[in-house]
Amino acid sequence: MNTYTIDLNCDLGESFGAYQMGRDKDLIPLVSSVNIACGFHAGDPSVMKRTVRLALENAVAIGAHPGLPDLVGFGRRPMGVSPEEVYDMVVYQIGALNAFVKTEGGNLRHVKPHGALYNMAATDQLIAEAIAEGVFKVDPELVLVGLAGSKLIEAGKKAGLKSAREAFADRAYQQDGTLRPRHYSDAVISDVKVAASQVIRMLKEGAIRSIDGGAFSVEVDTVCVHGDGPYAVEFAKKIRQILLAEGVKIQPFFL
Amino acid sequence: MNTYTIDLNCDLGESFGAYQMGRDKDLIPLVSSVNIACGFHAGDPSVMKRTVRLALENAVAIGAHPGLPDLVGFGRRPMGVSPEEVYDMVVYQIGALNAFVKTEGGNLRHVKPHGALYNMAATDQLIAEAIAEGVFKVDPELVLVGLAGSKLIEAGKKAGLKSAREAFADRAYQQDGTLRPRHYSDAVISDVKVAASQVIRMLKEGAIRSIDGGAFSVEVDTVCVHGDGPYAVEFAKKIRQILLAEGVKIQPFFL
Amino acid sequence: MNTYTIDLNCDLGESFGAYQMGRDKDLIPLVSSVNIACGFHAGDPSVMKRTVRLALENAVAIGAHPGLPDLVGFGRRPMGVSPEEVYDMVVYQIGALNAFVKTEGGNLRHVKPHGALYNMAATDQLIAEAIAEGVFKVDPELVLVGLAGSKLIEAGKKAGLKSAREAFADRAYQQDGTLRPRHYSDAVISDVKVAASQVIRMLKEGAIRSIDGGAFSVEVDTVCVHGDGPYAVEFAKKIRQILLAEGVKIQPFFL
Amino acid sequence: MNTYTIDLNCDLGESFGAYQMGRDKDLIPLVSSVNIACGFHAGDPSVMKRTVRLALENAVAIGAHPGLPDLVGFGRRPMGVSPEEVYDMVVYQIGALNAFVKTEGGNLRHVKPHGALYNMAATDQLIAEAIAEGVFKVDPELVLVGLAGSKLIEAGKKAGLKSAREAFADRAYQQDGTLRPRHYSDAVISDVKVAASQVIRMLKEGAIRSIDGGAFSVEVDTVCVHGDGPYAVEFAKKIRQILLAEGVKIQPFFL
Repeated sequence: MNTYTIDLNCDLGESFGAYQMGRDKDLIPLVSSVNIACGFHAGDPSVMKRTVRLALENAVAIGAHPGLPDLVGFGRRPMGVSPEEVYDMVVYQIGALNAFVKTEGGNLRHVKPHGALYNMAATDQLIAEAIAEGVFKVDPELVLVGLAGSKLIEAGKKAGLKSAREAFADRAYQQDGTLRPRHYSDAVISDVKVAASQVIRMLKEGAIRSIDGGAFSVEVDTVCVHGDGPYAVEFAKKIRQILLAEGVKIQPFFL
Repeated sequence: MNTYTIDLNCDLGESFGAYQMGRDKDLIPLVSSVNIACGFHAGDPSVMKRTVRLALENAVAIGAHPGLPDLVGFGRRPMGVSPEEVYDMVVYQIGALNAFVKTEGGNLRHVKPHGALYNMAATDQLIAEAIAEGVFKVDPELVLVGLAGSKLIEAGKKAGLKSAREAFADRAYQQDGTLRPRHYSDAVISDVKVAASQVIRMLKEGAIRSIDGGAFSVEVDTVCVHGDGPYAVEFAKKIRQILLAEGVKIQPFFL
Repeated sequence: MNTYTIDLNCDLGESFGAYQMGRDKDLIPLVSSVNIACGFHAGDPSVMKRTVRLALENAVAIGAHPGLPDLVGFGRRPMGVSPEEVYDMVVYQIGALNAFVKTEGGNLRHVKPHGALYNMAATDQLIAEAIAEGVFKVDPELVLVGLAGSKLIEAGKKAGLKSAREAFADRAYQQDGTLRPRHYSDAVISDVKVAASQVIRMLKEGAIRSIDGGAFSVEVDTVCVHGDGPYAVEFAKKIRQILLAEGVKIQPFFL
Repeated sequence: MNTYTIDLNCDLGESFGAYQMGRDKDLIPLVSSVNIACGFHAGDPSVMKRTVRLALENAVAIGAHPGLPDLVGFGRRPMGVSPEEVYDMVVYQIGALNAFVKTEGGNLRHVKPHGALYNMAATDQLIAEAIAEGVFKVDPELVLVGLAGSKLIEAGKKAGLKSAREAFADRAYQQDGTLRPRHYSDAVISDVKVAASQVIRMLKEGAIRSIDGGAFSVEVDTVCVHGDGPYAVEFAKKIRQILLAEGVKIQPFFL
């Protein structure tokens, strides 16, 4: 009998000053890796330190979550940044987060770009390569996390990085392997059993079933668990339970 | 015959986006250490990378120059920040700059707080200790630069850091060792020979002559050279020439 | 039999981008005036527009709530800003908010500085005068809201503005008329009946009882109702009920 | 004999805090209209007040120059902002600038979007309409300035605004009426006589000659004069001299 393992990751440390966001303390026991905002789209130095401490207390793998310099847009709005600007902002943000990881006695394990930067890096080769180069230059042992099948995964490999392929439990996929855009009514999977099944199929069959009834091959190292929305934590908890009940082992990628 | 050595330092990398500030390329050949802005009061990721490259090409010692989060005020306005906030912003900024120093193949040597943070750290013990702790936690080998005789120098020693005592060539001092406030007409020394003499006296006599004709003892490791103002570079060039003519050796502190 | 009237005011529109803050929709039916953040310490253009609409729907008096340019500190940290900088930032913020008030068909009624700017204006005459001058220059019909007995109230009168004197229901006062600092355990009044009594005494006796058992005279035009904290809305609701039960009429100041 | 009139406009008030940008005092005597930055991509409250004063002293027509919230990118990087966000940021920025115009005793005459927002509004109908609606709602008497032949000019008319059509003296045009992109070596006209001829042809023939030797019709109300670059002021001075020598009258549009 095969044993399957998967990493569950979530974004953390998205509060800013007096603004609270996310249920970090409720989410963190459910995941094996966390991506911590670095002050550009969310987070501030004090939030970052506290979040690193929380991550170390919970013994999860710690990643930097660099974003575009757009606090009011939460890093979700694409910007016409040059590859060199992307390289620079990625190096800056990883360095800033890493300082807290080190001063708190931990190790930075991975980097996952946030929001619009993540999406741009999925399809724009030059942006993807700029991110990969920045991560590699800071530390070639870091793992680069990107959308499974994306330009970012390619760029990571090309740069000499280990790349972790990410998929989503609660998002529907189209036949070409891309995510169903959010403005479609069937973009989000709200039935937790369907979402868990999607993850289990990825693991056991190496495939995702697309919305038109077909399927495509995919290899997945990590699954993103969302923390926003009123039922997010409950949803994550149930997915985790179903995966564990199916004998799936949840642990950081590439252990 | 004694040989005297002194470090000359200047602030660098204070441009921001499309905004140019300072004559970095003209100043850098005149100094032995530079303090690079880290994005809070000045500087941005792209400016930081370029400035680190410039520093490495000129083989000067590289320091981080963290400031208050006040870009419009250029970090010159005191803010009611808590010691913990200061610790956090210092760790963040050192980490960010250090990422560029490392990716460009250099080594970070020192940290000097900027503007209002520098002044607050000179007299406020808790702020001084927060900075010293941040620097030490990031790397205990870093040198902490502060005003000679200030709380920051004390805090650095107490934290276990080497501390470099800074004095000014072109600023008048009061009998108690403090700088003559800028709103007095005799606050700034505009005669370059007088300024150079002030530095030479620090080195040879371990003393600074105060505006009332008295003198006080001082030990100095580094002298700040200003880059702003239309005659700043010319002024720095002449001070350097006078010092060299007097047989003073200009090199980074603690070599 | 006398009828007493009082204005109840609260701060509104403190969300920013994806960050939600405050229970604006629950609070607004309880007050007669609102102070809307203007984008420096909180709020953004979209939040401001929505908040102005909410205020108009609820027929409350609308005020601008300008703050220091310190988003991460929520405008609560004093900054060494010059009176001219204060004048400029107040004019800017009032103008920005007023644009939404006018485009939505309303009228701006008052200005109340936020947080550290409010506190600085209570004791620093030059800062107080800079604010009053800015408000007057934008529109001499605007009402300036400040702490009862503060420099800001004086400065408003001197500038030719109507000034509304503010007091707090849930904060203890010291014998000299100043607020008991928040780090004392008796700074905040958590018993809603005591808080309501404090307001009623202000109205009926023109006095506030101080923590040492004495009392001092005070004239009050508006009482601040807080929206932060888990019980804030419930607390505000009860104070309002008690005041109404006592026959106090709640309406905007100076009607 | 016909007399031709044209408006010359330039961007002003692009300094920020300690950062100086542009030669505002040298440029302003050469133009009849100015567009003042409003604090999002450049400018700050103090710069805005000083620039409004400078404009009033020089009796030029005053416009607001709203931009994207991207200071480090100087508003030159396209962002994925929604039409509603654009409406909101335009209303905010016009309101803020208008407060200074009014407190200094002037009148706001026009609005011209800056940089990437200007370019987006030239081709994206929804963005163009959002800007036009914002301008109209603030004051239907304001003139909207946009690229001649662009969606913004259309949107302005549709909204009920007077729209001023802008062309460039020093930029080459393609046959379809669009600007030759800057990455082509023939994008910028560096010969001031050629640039002046381009303006004179617009006025006398209602046409622009395109880089392929053809020509297209154009109606122009205002010509943009650039202030950046080492020779910009000299260039503007010469164009102005040539136009005056040709009997062209330089004055604000729609007088």
